[in-house]
Amino acid sequence: MIYFTETDIDRLIEDDVPAGDMTSYLMDFKGETGRISLFARHSMVVCCIEEAERMYRKNGLQIMHSVPSGTKLSEGDKMLEAEGNAEAIHLIWRTGLAMIEFASGIATRTNSLVEAAHAVNQNIQVAGTRKHPPYLKKIALKALMAGGGIPHRTGLSDTILIFREHLLFSGGYENIENVITKIRNKQKERKIVVEAHNISEAKLIASSGADVIQMDKLPPNDFPICKKECEKINPSICIIAAGGVNASNAAEYAKAGAEVLVTSWMYFAPPADIKAVIEKI
Amino acid sequence: MIYFTETDIDRLIEDDVPAGDMTSYLMDFKGETGRISLFARHSMVVCCIEEAERMYRKNGLQIMHSVPSGTKLSEGDKMLEAEGNAEAIHLIWRTGLAMIEFASGIATRTNSLVEAAHAVNQNIQVAGTRKHPPYLKKIALKALMAGGGIPHRTGLSDTILIFREHLLFSGGYENIENVITKIRNKQKERKIVVEAHNISEAKLIASSGADVIQMDKLPPNDFPICKKECEKINPSICIIAAGGVNASNAAEYAKAGAEVLVTSWMYFAPPADIKAVIEKI
Amino acid sequence: MIYFTETDIDRLIEDDVPAGDMTSYLMDFKGETGRISLFARHSMVVCCIEEAERMYRKNGLQIMHSVPSGTKLSEGDKMLEAEGNAEAIHLIWRTGLAMIEFASGIATRTNSLVEAAHAVNQNIQVAGTRKHPPYLKKIALKALMAGGGIPHRTGLSDTILIFREHLLFSGGYENIENVITKIRNKQKERKIVVEAHNISEAKLIASSGADVIQMDKLPPNDFPICKKECEKINPSICIIAAGGVNASNAAEYAKAGAEVLVTSWMYFAPPADIKAVIEKI
Amino acid sequence: MIYFTETDIDRLIEDDVPAGDMTSYLMDFKGETGRISLFARHSMVVCCIEEAERMYRKNGLQIMHSVPSGTKLSEGDKMLEAEGNAEAIHLIWRTGLAMIEFASGIATRTNSLVEAAHAVNQNIQVAGTRKHPPYLKKIALKALMAGGGIPHRTGLSDTILIFREHLLFSGGYENIENVITKIRNKQKERKIVVEAHNISEAKLIASSGADVIQMDKLPPNDFPICKKECEKINPSICIIAAGGVNASNAAEYAKAGAEVLVTSWMYFAPPADIKAVIEKI
Amino acid sequence: MIYFTETDIDRLIEDDVPAGDMTSYLMDFKGETGRISLFARHSMVVCCIEEAERMYRKNGLQIMHSVPSGTKLSEGDKMLEAEGNAEAIHLIWRTGLAMIEFASGIATRTNSLVEAAHAVNQNIQVAGTRKHPPYLKKIALKALMAGGGIPHRTGLSDTILIFREHLLFSGGYENIENVITKIRNKQKERKIVVEAHNISEAKLIASSGADVIQMDKLPPNDFPICKKECEKINPSICIIAAGGVNASNAAEYAKAGAEVLVTSWMYFAPPADIKAVIEKI
Amino acid sequence: MIYFTETDIDRLIEDDVPAGDMTSYLMDFKGETGRISLFARHSMVVCCIEEAERMYRKNGLQIMHSVPSGTKLSEGDKMLEAEGNAEAIHLIWRTGLAMIEFASGIATRTNSLVEAAHAVNQNIQVAGTRKHPPYLKKIALKALMAGGGIPHRTGLSDTILIFREHLLFSGGYENIENVITKIRNKQKERKIVVEAHNISEAKLIASSGADVIQMDKLPPNDFPICKKECEKINPSICIIAAGGVNASNAAEYAKAGAEVLVTSWMYFAPPADIKAVIEKI
Repeated sequence: MIYFTETDIDRLIEDDVPAGDMTSYLMDFKGETGRISLFARHSMVVCCIEEAERMYRKNGLQIMHSVPSGTKLSEGDKMLEAEGNAEAIHLIWRTGLAMIEFASGIATRTNSLVEAAHAVNQNIQVAGTRKHPPYLKKIALKALMAGGGIPHRTGLSDTILIFREHLLFSGGYENIENVITKIRNKQKERKIVVEAHNISEAKLIASSGADVIQMDKLPPNDFPICKKECEKINPSICIIAAGGVNASNAAEYAKAGAEVLVTSWMYFAPPADIKAVIEKI
Repeated sequence: MIYFTETDIDRLIEDDVPAGDMTSYLMDFKGETGRISLFARHSMVVCCIEEAERMYRKNGLQIMHSVPSGTKLSEGDKMLEAEGNAEAIHLIWRTGLAMIEFASGIATRTNSLVEAAHAVNQNIQVAGTRKHPPYLKKIALKALMAGGGIPHRTGLSDTILIFREHLLFSGGYENIENVITKIRNKQKERKIVVEAHNISEAKLIASSGADVIQMDKLPPNDFPICKKECEKINPSICIIAAGGVNASNAAEYAKAGAEVLVTSWMYFAPPADIKAVIEKI
Repeated sequence: MIYFTETDIDRLIEDDVPAGDMTSYLMDFKGETGRISLFARHSMVVCCIEEAERMYRKNGLQIMHSVPSGTKLSEGDKMLEAEGNAEAIHLIWRTGLAMIEFASGIATRTNSLVEAAHAVNQNIQVAGTRKHPPYLKKIALKALMAGGGIPHRTGLSDTILIFREHLLFSGGYENIENVITKIRNKQKERKIVVEAHNISEAKLIASSGADVIQMDKLPPNDFPICKKECEKINPSICIIAAGGVNASNAAEYAKAGAEVLVTSWMYFAPPADIKAVIEKI
Repeated sequence: MIYFTETDIDRLIEDDVPAGDMTSYLMDFKGETGRISLFARHSMVVCCIEEAERMYRKNGLQIMHSVPSGTKLSEGDKMLEAEGNAEAIHLIWRTGLAMIEFASGIATRTNSLVEAAHAVNQNIQVAGTRKHPPYLKKIALKALMAGGGIPHRTGLSDTILIFREHLLFSGGYENIENVITKIRNKQKERKIVVEAHNISEAKLIASSGADVIQMDKLPPNDFPICKKECEKINPSICIIAAGGVNASNAAEYAKAGAEVLVTSWMYFAPPADIKAVIEKI
Repeated sequence: MIYFTETDIDRLIEDDVPAGDMTSYLMDFKGETGRISLFARHSMVVCCIEEAERMYRKNGLQIMHSVPSGTKLSEGDKMLEAEGNAEAIHLIWRTGLAMIEFASGIATRTNSLVEAAHAVNQNIQVAGTRKHPPYLKKIALKALMAGGGIPHRTGLSDTILIFREHLLFSGGYENIENVITKIRNKQKERKIVVEAHNISEAKLIASSGADVIQMDKLPPNDFPICKKECEKINPSICIIAAGGVNASNAAEYAKAGAEVLVTSWMYFAPPADIKAVIEKI
Repeated sequence: MIYFTETDIDRLIEDDVPAGDMTSYLMDFKGETGRISLFARHSMVVCCIEEAERMYRKNGLQIMHSVPSGTKLSEGDKMLEAEGNAEAIHLIWRTGLAMIEFASGIATRTNSLVEAAHAVNQNIQVAGTRKHPPYLKKIALKALMAGGGIPHRTGLSDTILIFREHLLFSGGYENIENVITKIRNKQKERKIVVEAHNISEAKLIASSGADVIQMDKLPPNDFPICKKECEKINPSICIIAAGGVNASNAAEYAKAGAEVLVTSWMYFAPPADIKAVIEKI
């Protein structure tokens, strides 16, 4: 459950109408009331319906129907319906729609990745990185989870993930065992993940005491040998695939033995296509 | 010149490190200094270099090199270089990079649309809608303009754009002339744009006194006849194309006589691919 | 419909009670309940009743009566009534009142300008500039529209308005035709407005292809000749009056043929005088 | 010294350019540099020069000259001058100017009240209430003090000021002595001020142990008798005038013996008239 | 009544769940509902129940029972109970609890000081300084008042309190009479408090016309003589004790004749111990 | 490196001076300059010097000397010195001091815990929970780390920590193995921590596949047997102590074999005592 503050909701509305809706004001249909209904134009996993509801309610609309984030819809299914003042409907129409379309695009693409991976291995996970578009962490994470994915890391404060660039200042991969030992003594409640770019780096990591090796852009073909070599060194090591993972290679990586597929590919999905119908009532 | 507030910059950094950089803290390389350099991995129009610079400087780095937003770079060109504390470099590395990659993706795609359209007609414009991802108005607009596009509308407060859905509450397209007359009397400093979905709606609008007809999803093939019919009614009418405009049909719409190409397609460009090199110094 | 965020409302309350209401706390009338009623002390167009209601409700009061913003009231008419905890009434009394008084002052003055102008010409408009007091854009715009005015521009992002100071960097008024042509090619969905200070500048603008001439401080007497000269050059040119427009000269400008009266005079209206009656119940 | 946060400054700029300066963008004078200079068009006490400087600097301009808030200027005196990028000058021109004009209007009017009162009595004070326009507390207080006034109260959290409306819930003016005794026992570090509307209420207050009587709308003619009666009861009582105090009656109230003139009249001063000169350099 | 904005409430929640509740998400008990009840583990004065209620309601819980801030509870008493979605209960459990525990700790300690002082003298007050932990002004003040204390000063904007450090720039204690005279002429609605560190400074202040002497760290034993000497000079002078006041010496200071006990000791109370019971329903 | 935004800094200053420094304004020592120096009154680990520096600089002071957060100082050591305008020094004096005193109190207490534990076992860690005072996450974490501690969890978004209360909705401790298996399949990059209250719960957890057992309030005496039993089941299990850990029992828990000491005790340390010396220069 991602918590959107009042400001998170308000900012979206205000961004679109910093100084009033010029068109509705000039058309002057005050007094009229209408209905707005949103329908899926293709099968999708919807997301951020709750946040659109909050926008609607903040502008005085009454919610008549809604489905929770994470629901799988077929073409033509209704996801949200509300009634109220015509001017309010126009004020909020596109802002609510844009949020749902954007989030549902991510949720739907995440779900397709999850399904592709699970067709091969029920226990493989799709993890979304922190490399989403700027300012979008909450929507990205909510959509990722609505689609069945999990956060890889939500930022720098939650996990220990050592890149080659960290090791530049600590003696390189050759010194990885010392680095891991030092960190392990200081932090025992979190796993230590280290990025590798090839099998020799992976083997150094496997023998260092780290918990997880994140293979960056290792081709699926090389994955089994990498895994075999590393598990020889440390049978409980977890090896995950990152860098360029997408729908076209997810099954391959799953077959190759990756335990987690780490990617930001879902965040750049096209927005879901949703039909908004406005009626006078 | 899009104005990013201090909070706009801070929010991005804080989102990624709400509670410190756990990895750098545990690795403990305080005292070390380094250099971070960003290079284009393909030809691109860069954007939001200035905002990344502000992030760098706020964390104590010194800028050694930078190019302004809107610069066209070739593969391998350097866009930004800074030096300073190693911990600060790691803290800001990905946040700055993600912003530039995202914005440059939009700028580059906008530019490709602009070039495709201008190859046919130097005076046709590429206009970006307000249907960008949530929370991204400033980045989207800065990137749009860096790529040579212009804002179609930045929200509901700036332009008068009448949709079919507005007319539902005002007598429909049949009543458009009365609507336009009423608005014109109230607002003489802004153009009135009306959306049409077919040639018969367009003709009603052309005779109503509106300034601009925004044709929604009219196929390029039908554009010339639409334009001819409307200009017969009002020779100074401006006809613009919206709905589904992208790189594959921009030239066609330009040839078909559209004066403006209105789209949100550029906002969903893949992020530009930029190489970050970190070195110990 | 101007959208006030939760923070817009909260900030006003918090500004007045950053650290509690010292007087009520010390008087200690907890448990008591009361009624607060607001009455017009003179005829006025009220504004920001809705925002005061939100303040009242946020502090637990129950709204018993209210009239919408834009309502014309006579002396003695009641505009708002609420009941609840006596401490809450004292906490919010002056903040709500100050907002309504200030906004109603602007709305009432705007309305007097609109009526003065409409007595001469039903189609002339009163437009409010962006030169309102700092931080007051939303209240200023809401009050302007409640009084029957329209926004001239809400800021730099919505309209194209070229001042002499822009032309300093682009060749001056002599070069205005090139400037207009260049802009027109880039932006076809917005009118181009240019400021002039005398008839000769106006004529250069009229022949440049601009849509609107904004005459700055041209005396009403000179308006007809200016208009005639410009319309000779471009019959569809729109000429508007700005700079020093107020109640004493609005009718004159209207008679002189100005199509829009642009002013910030209404924003500096004295606050409307409203009587707040508090009763114990 | 009123502290303006970074957000206080940014909000003003962003309000005016939420989505870029459309005119400057389209005119495209990048590369050009200019100078902006502000001159007093009449004698005035200037205020908020420092805040305008911050706006200028945040947009890259270099300050060449400035005078501190509170300076008295004669017609033609220069208050602020800066140089830099032409686009930046246009972006910030009116926002900086509007803040200085608005604040200087208040400072100048405050100063005229102070001078009128001091001509009669050097020790009388001009105190500004909290009834300034919404959102303007900091500017109002800075301008009030720049003009030589003092805050009456800055909100509900700082002073103890008992209105008739408080007494409604505590036994009315008849019970004022009990009320004052109760409060005095609880709060010994702040004076207790009580509002009165006539001499009989004033006498009840004078005998209650309160420190200050705030006479609401008592005509100057009645002030001496009121003061005499109250001082007979309590020689150290302080009597202040509030309600309708302005330039036309300040001297009268001063002569009549008011020790403080409490008003919000200065906050609704017309903005000072300041000439901005922009030059190409 | 301290006013907490929507942002004040949201910030606490968001701080704890910037990116969702990872544990609840992974446990996946959606659909389940529960009850959360809070019980005092010792006698205490509770505080910030209302703010916890707002947190609960914002996450969809229904309040079944609550007691107002300031209520004295015995061990085992229930202060708050709510029901709703199990995931929401986990999301808000500790944040609401931490706020109540922290505020109730302050309220309870304040109350113990008040009771210790009142046992000696009903009219002595316990005043809390502005030296609370950073960011905690509202909670600190609400808890202070819930426990029966009063604000000494809420910050620099409300009271006049002259420290030795101010006098460094104004001629020292020797010049205090001139300083007081000058201030008195400028500000007649607020008392003037001056800090002293010994009896000779106190006597200088007593003869200066100041209203209150704040004795910093004067031992209780020396208080009576100090008071006597000062009252000889000015019988209406108020003498208050500050610096190191706490539960162990409050009664002594009260007996010694201090009229107000000024301290920040209550703000560093250990949090109250409250038992949270969660049940499945 | 904890990132404090501009707003984090501004909020502290503004909280203390919402409407100007009344005392300095009335004393009117403009023009004077001074020096402020901070000295440790006892040995301490200082913290938040950098944030105080930012406050100083934002008010125009020049930093003459400072030591980094985390420095151990002896009685009398200087930590910070700045010079500038006397009014600015008074405005910021206590706010900067309060932040350093509060943070240094936490850092110093953390350090004493770390040293007590390390005297027994160099590899035991002191971890701070998220149960710090409201609004204080950044300061609490910065001080925790300055003192040599590590974050246990910074909130709900970073670690997987299963309480008894979670299990209420998932079959209780009896079902823990199923719960762990389910979570492990979904999240492989984070450790799973489960809270236990006694040895039998601990044994269930040890056999469930969880990574860490957090023993809540298990007396140090019982720790060795608990550890032995659990390690018999899972030799790589990590057992940590939480609930009531403080200076008086840290060494005992360390000796008893706890690998991490989890506590919020350091957050409620008394503020460090720091002497501020202000001089006229």
